[in-house]
Amino acid sequence: MHFASDNTAPVPPAVMAALMAANDGCPPSYGADGWTARATDLLRDVLQAPQATVHLVATGTAANALALACLCPPWGGVFCHAHAHVHEDECGAPEFFSAGAKLLPLAGDHGRIAPGALAAALAATGGSVHNVQKGALTLTNVTEAGTVYSAAQTAELAGLARAAAVPVHLDGARFGNAVVATGATPADLTWRAGVDALSFGATKLGAMGVEAVVFFDPARGHEFALRRKRAGHLLSKGRYLGAQIVAMLEQDRWLGWAAHANAMAASLAQGLAARGVALAHPVQANILFPHWPAGTSARLRAAGAIFYDMPAPAGMEGARLVTHWATTESDVARLLSLI
Amino acid sequence: MHFASDNTAPVPPAVMAALMAANDGCPPSYGADGWTARATDLLRDVLQAPQATVHLVATGTAANALALACLCPPWGGVFCHAHAHVHEDECGAPEFFSAGAKLLPLAGDHGRIAPGALAAALAATGGSVHNVQKGALTLTNVTEAGTVYSAAQTAELAGLARAAAVPVHLDGARFGNAVVATGATPADLTWRAGVDALSFGATKLGAMGVEAVVFFDPARGHEFALRRKRAGHLLSKGRYLGAQIVAMLEQDRWLGWAAHANAMAASLAQGLAARGVALAHPVQANILFPHWPAGTSARLRAAGAIFYDMPAPAGMEGARLVTHWATTESDVARLLSLI
Amino acid sequence: MHFASDNTAPVPPAVMAALMAANDGCPPSYGADGWTARATDLLRDVLQAPQATVHLVATGTAANALALACLCPPWGGVFCHAHAHVHEDECGAPEFFSAGAKLLPLAGDHGRIAPGALAAALAATGGSVHNVQKGALTLTNVTEAGTVYSAAQTAELAGLARAAAVPVHLDGARFGNAVVATGATPADLTWRAGVDALSFGATKLGAMGVEAVVFFDPARGHEFALRRKRAGHLLSKGRYLGAQIVAMLEQDRWLGWAAHANAMAASLAQGLAARGVALAHPVQANILFPHWPAGTSARLRAAGAIFYDMPAPAGMEGARLVTHWATTESDVARLLSLI
Amino acid sequence: MHFASDNTAPVPPAVMAALMAANDGCPPSYGADGWTARATDLLRDVLQAPQATVHLVATGTAANALALACLCPPWGGVFCHAHAHVHEDECGAPEFFSAGAKLLPLAGDHGRIAPGALAAALAATGGSVHNVQKGALTLTNVTEAGTVYSAAQTAELAGLARAAAVPVHLDGARFGNAVVATGATPADLTWRAGVDALSFGATKLGAMGVEAVVFFDPARGHEFALRRKRAGHLLSKGRYLGAQIVAMLEQDRWLGWAAHANAMAASLAQGLAARGVALAHPVQANILFPHWPAGTSARLRAAGAIFYDMPAPAGMEGARLVTHWATTESDVARLLSLI
Repeated sequence: MHFASDNTAPVPPAVMAALMAANDGCPPSYGADGWTARATDLLRDVLQAPQATVHLVATGTAANALALACLCPPWGGVFCHAHAHVHEDECGAPEFFSAGAKLLPLAGDHGRIAPGALAAALAATGGSVHNVQKGALTLTNVTEAGTVYSAAQTAELAGLARAAAVPVHLDGARFGNAVVATGATPADLTWRAGVDALSFGATKLGAMGVEAVVFFDPARGHEFALRRKRAGHLLSKGRYLGAQIVAMLEQDRWLGWAAHANAMAASLAQGLAARGVALAHPVQANILFPHWPAGTSARLRAAGAIFYDMPAPAGMEGARLVTHWATTESDVARLLSLI
Repeated sequence: MHFASDNTAPVPPAVMAALMAANDGCPPSYGADGWTARATDLLRDVLQAPQATVHLVATGTAANALALACLCPPWGGVFCHAHAHVHEDECGAPEFFSAGAKLLPLAGDHGRIAPGALAAALAATGGSVHNVQKGALTLTNVTEAGTVYSAAQTAELAGLARAAAVPVHLDGARFGNAVVATGATPADLTWRAGVDALSFGATKLGAMGVEAVVFFDPARGHEFALRRKRAGHLLSKGRYLGAQIVAMLEQDRWLGWAAHANAMAASLAQGLAARGVALAHPVQANILFPHWPAGTSARLRAAGAIFYDMPAPAGMEGARLVTHWATTESDVARLLSLI
Repeated sequence: MHFASDNTAPVPPAVMAALMAANDGCPPSYGADGWTARATDLLRDVLQAPQATVHLVATGTAANALALACLCPPWGGVFCHAHAHVHEDECGAPEFFSAGAKLLPLAGDHGRIAPGALAAALAATGGSVHNVQKGALTLTNVTEAGTVYSAAQTAELAGLARAAAVPVHLDGARFGNAVVATGATPADLTWRAGVDALSFGATKLGAMGVEAVVFFDPARGHEFALRRKRAGHLLSKGRYLGAQIVAMLEQDRWLGWAAHANAMAASLAQGLAARGVALAHPVQANILFPHWPAGTSARLRAAGAIFYDMPAPAGMEGARLVTHWATTESDVARLLSLI
Repeated sequence: MHFASDNTAPVPPAVMAALMAANDGCPPSYGADGWTARATDLLRDVLQAPQATVHLVATGTAANALALACLCPPWGGVFCHAHAHVHEDECGAPEFFSAGAKLLPLAGDHGRIAPGALAAALAATGGSVHNVQKGALTLTNVTEAGTVYSAAQTAELAGLARAAAVPVHLDGARFGNAVVATGATPADLTWRAGVDALSFGATKLGAMGVEAVVFFDPARGHEFALRRKRAGHLLSKGRYLGAQIVAMLEQDRWLGWAAHANAMAASLAQGLAARGVALAHPVQANILFPHWPAGTSARLRAAGAIFYDMPAPAGMEGARLVTHWATTESDVARLLSLI
């Protein structure tokens, strides 16, 4: 019963098969191979963005921090949710890559930045040289709270930013789950809503280790390529990154994996509700935050369940449960049976 | 006839098999898995360094630049060969990771730092606050010129550095080739010779994309772990890095791959000599720098050979040929037959 | 009626006289002159810290950011008050000098960090490599709210930090005002209370442009000297910085200037109270935050008063008034007469 | 007999008088005062550059490193003379301010970059993402060798850079000496020759501590202002920087000081030649590099002369002598009499 994270999941057979297929011959290194080219084409198609630049890296932290460094100067502030991964879980990676930008955490229920909070922060930031300037906005979809931004919600926040000449980044570590959850097209959730740069997550969906960074304005791509190399994030045997993306995007496999993960989470949510377990946040994608009675967590763990603890109201215990492509119905059923 | 680089080679079957074997279940992420633990144990055994810390990253640039950042303060200078990869081929990665250290290129024949050049530079560096201070020494073995440092040569340079309280890094992107070429033990080429930190290369030997950074003084390891995370170089599905190292080190496969690559280079060197082709540097590992008559390169390429051009004396053409685990005797024979 | 800031004040005659006296001959540059040596001695005496290192720089931002960079690694967090100058008014200088440390703003009434807030933040920070680590604590005395930390209050906060192995910096841009206000000795407000590094402010007290950075553990001084040079903060004609400090500290002039400034603020506070004007914070040093009826600010400005606006409750207007060595009783009386 | 450096000289009376005159009232801080405005106007007039932006800082290292950071991205290389102050004497300041740019030292006789060396370096730099990119060119006039670039020489080098889209910085720590030595106008030595940014030196000419950074394209100025604040180089009592510049530029005092310094150097050169002392470089401004017989240096020092040692041919001793506004004819005569 593995509910610790979608990054503990194994790799789907289609990805392993693509790696095997890519393991042939001696194509050019550093991303000049055919698999990377094919991955780029497929991703442009998925995003309906034929001009976009696509660069592959091995981790989400690299994708986010490198992208933000391209959008935000060292003296800029990055508007983000107070619980954003870039702010809380990357050991200061955005500060490192940007040469010292300041993250400006914003409030908002259920992991989503409140438009009013963003508007106030935009108005309050910058001005004289004594202050950090308006730098970039970063959204996360699926959010850290397991909720999603609809295309309209994305557009509202991105619109506020762009009206202030602030570029917009989307941390899409679980972008596939967001696409499935919202029913919106990838384009509607990104460039049509005002997103300038996308960290297109693959690893949490099922890949071995690859993320794509997409700039919808191709003029921004070259700086990213230089920053990527300089940061040691240009892999020499690039074909193996490209192959993973190809396997994901072909036959819309990524949406199938995301749909399965979301469905497993919905089953869990339904079962928990039936057992009277409250949830800290609405379940919209593949993450749940139950508050269950004290003692429950230990009992579940004794039975083999793996998950993280979270804060909870007095007398209760909090947990985070994450589902993924490999989560089974029997795991879900078994967990529920133990509560 | 693929002689462009050892980083264009595919991955040996044993590595692919290990990746398949690792693709099972949901072990903890971020390197807390059993494959990473096994890789660490094996590498400590190979290096006869049971206390050493081992951290895996996906690229050699990351390995080198992160290791150097741990050894050299921002106001330090990194003593390196004038043609070192860290100086010429990483788009300023050491400067980035170290927050602005200065690389101090040193002369030396055939890619090896001349002890006299190092001694002079150590004596001339530092002193007042107006100058960059002595930071770290980095050696490369196999060198960029395809030569190797013996254990004694390593110890001589490292000894000069350590006498000046300067720590020593070894860029071992082709460490396996150096071990085979010198016949020295890994320990003799590293900590016994005074090396503090080793970038243990795997990708150019045959892995899909992994390098290990080893600190022989375990007190240095924690800073590396923080820098790695902050730089986006901590992969979430760490088992797939660990598995590659395990496959390499088990049954001494890495030495077999290196021995094959070195043997193919020796065959090439012998054949070239027989055809009167001079070499810019002695062939000691898996890289050759022939100077052949003008017109040769185009003819070879027309026949399907892939390699890089290099400078050459007037009337001649220079090339770089690199062999690897997958280089075949027939490729070698065919190339030679064309000259 | 100049109440904008103590950094708009001119320079007391004693400072100008010292600059004139120093303008003689050709002593060694870069701080190796006699004035700098004398300034160092005097400051060590004042602080009862004969081993402390003293380095002079021209600005408070440089003093703070350079000192913090010595105390906090790039992956560390700097615990500070939410309204600290380093967080709000230095355009990200601490982030720049530290190579990307993260400022961790803490709550607390009237500009003072609440011990509970610090304790909670210390407990919540660090742990795994995914998080920014505990870096340094910075206090500001006089605070941005015009209040002071007593020696005991300083020791309480510093004690929490040191118990967590976190070093302590004190931003003493108005340290003289704090000494006068608390009646404590400089030693009691600094090293005896657990402070590791002090930005000893001179400019706001009366100097033309100089601040001293003091490390009570002399082992920390050399790194500061290197960082200072590298940041362009080592002035060549150092004697003119030294002379300012000498003029300040000789005959306890600095305390006289601070006492005058504090007394003028107390007069203002008394007069405002008599006129029923509330203050946002207790007046303990040389800064006041009145809330007066709407329309007052414009009337005062029309009469020649200069000051900054501040937030205020509905129907009121907020202002910040700062006094200094050159504030006159007649200015105070005139301002009060206009309210 | 003070020949150590022009930065050991005292401050001319006109500068002290201006500081006294500026010490009146409470003008706005941070450079919004009338003295700074007047300094800006005067400098624009001197440079015939009415649109140029002017920012004052306290040191030459800050001026150079901040200006270069505006011109060169972190992944860029700064083309400079191998003995440039930015490369050898600033403890890595350009690397720090630029977030890790690499200095690319170039050869050239007598402190001047050889055009062929620059052309070759421009051709060899950049290209793929594996290499540091072309960043900026920095010239130094007066050079470290005491020679000058004529307007034509400046234009030749700047022209090569600009043809490669590389912006040009001029380190003018001794710009006044260069203007006097060449007889060229300040405009001819800067923007008319293709210089984009000028560090206009004042301290070595006679100021207490101030340098002006000029961008001829005003669009570049705002970034500098942000970088200056963030680096702690925006002085609060800016009027005292402005006043120094005003005193310098009014009545062309700066040129008088420079002319005196250059004349003293010429006298020294003439006297040394008469005594058969060879010079390492032509004497064109206010620095001399004599090679005199072994034993001379000690004898001169015993008699009270102060200067730096320099390398020299076998059997000889090298020295560096620097003259300045306060160097006296009697000092020159006395030094010569001792040789």
